[in-house]
Amino acid sequence: MTVRPAVIVLDVNETLSDMSPMAARFAEVGVSGALARVWFATLLRDGFALTAAGDRGTFADMAAEVLRGLLDGEDLNRPLGHAVEHVMAGMAALGLHEDVADGVRELHQAGRRLITLTNGSSMVAKKIFGAAGILDVFEALLSVDDAPAWKPAPDSYLYAARVTGVDPSEMMMVAVHPWDIHGAAAAGLRTAWINRSGARYPAYFTPPEHNVTALTDLPDVLAHSA
Amino acid sequence: MTVRPAVIVLDVNETLSDMSPMAARFAEVGVSGALARVWFATLLRDGFALTAAGDRGTFADMAAEVLRGLLDGEDLNRPLGHAVEHVMAGMAALGLHEDVADGVRELHQAGRRLITLTNGSSMVAKKIFGAAGILDVFEALLSVDDAPAWKPAPDSYLYAARVTGVDPSEMMMVAVHPWDIHGAAAAGLRTAWINRSGARYPAYFTPPEHNVTALTDLPDVLAHSA
Repeated sequence: MTVRPAVIVLDVNETLSDMSPMAARFAEVGVSGALARVWFATLLRDGFALTAAGDRGTFADMAAEVLRGLLDGEDLNRPLGHAVEHVMAGMAALGLHEDVADGVRELHQAGRRLITLTNGSSMVAKKIFGAAGILDVFEALLSVDDAPAWKPAPDSYLYAARVTGVDPSEMMMVAVHPWDIHGAAAAGLRTAWINRSGARYPAYFTPPEHNVTALTDLPDVLAHSA
Repeated sequence: MTVRPAVIVLDVNETLSDMSPMAARFAEVGVSGALARVWFATLLRDGFALTAAGDRGTFADMAAEVLRGLLDGEDLNRPLGHAVEHVMAGMAALGLHEDVADGVRELHQAGRRLITLTNGSSMVAKKIFGAAGILDVFEALLSVDDAPAWKPAPDSYLYAARVTGVDPSEMMMVAVHPWDIHGAAAAGLRTAWINRSGARYPAYFTPPEHNVTALTDLPDVLAHSA
């Protein structure tokens, strides 16, 4: 039996991992939890700026440096360096969204090959999946650390296609971030957007082929599509 | 007399225009003024994502669309469309930072050629400079709308070099945004970072050649540099 798409490519940060506990980490060092959102948008903004300029950064180093810039001068309850460490430690302690373990198991049982592709590190992904007991369903945990560029540059997705040995058209990118859907589509992959929060999909990005509200909806959607 | 750099390239949003009144616009529609920061970081994040994917957006359209996404579902004091319009109207009503009028006049009097290069529209820049009475000092108001890509892609700065007919090494990019300094340096321009707020310069971007706290400091710094 041929199942298409053959390979499901899952993003990691926010798509699989639940980053909502990061707000509490900010509050614990004495600043508003709302800064978590500014922090992550700024981190990606600067990471994409480097990508657009033909350069690259290392996700964890950039995350800590953006944090240092944001927290510097704020009324912290501990020294700046300790505050940065405390928030960053939260990234390694994240759990998965409720729908993830069941969703990836069902996709695996349906005969799909599963990989992850993150702008972060493979080691962090491995740690989170290991703790959640789902490491066995993934054929590979890929990071742009080994690709020519960060997502959403097309070369990042084409790197995943090379590693798995399939044509980009036989792969489906699954992500919560519209910029990831757009980049994957530009590289020739099929796409599914996970929209857990009822968000609007921005008009300036290529729309996804599939919209689901949880990863557990995806096996059924794929079973009924070409 | 030969003055180097021959052409000073000024960024517009936040570098010349004072965007701090945007926080009040958010408060006026019933949400936290802190959202202004999330809005602008998200707008640039997505604009750079399109650039990294080899595509492009239109600044004003993207600004309104990001705003719609942010405000949708918030407890607004007016319909969503009106709230978006009210905040967007703030962008056209911005004034300049205190140091800008004197700074650009002094650079002009020192024999520097002055242009602006924005990811936004030339028309908005023209309106703001006209209202402030400094339109006459600029040789050209350039926008990436006419370039192959948004800043910080190197092609955007090389477009400005082609228009002004000088080598990139004879141009100096002046901006408050470290990503703009990085992109300009990657394209071979000289750089000056305006740091009005005592911010940290991120370690992952190429550092600027010059650091100044106001545009009025730049003429003197340039007079004493090669």
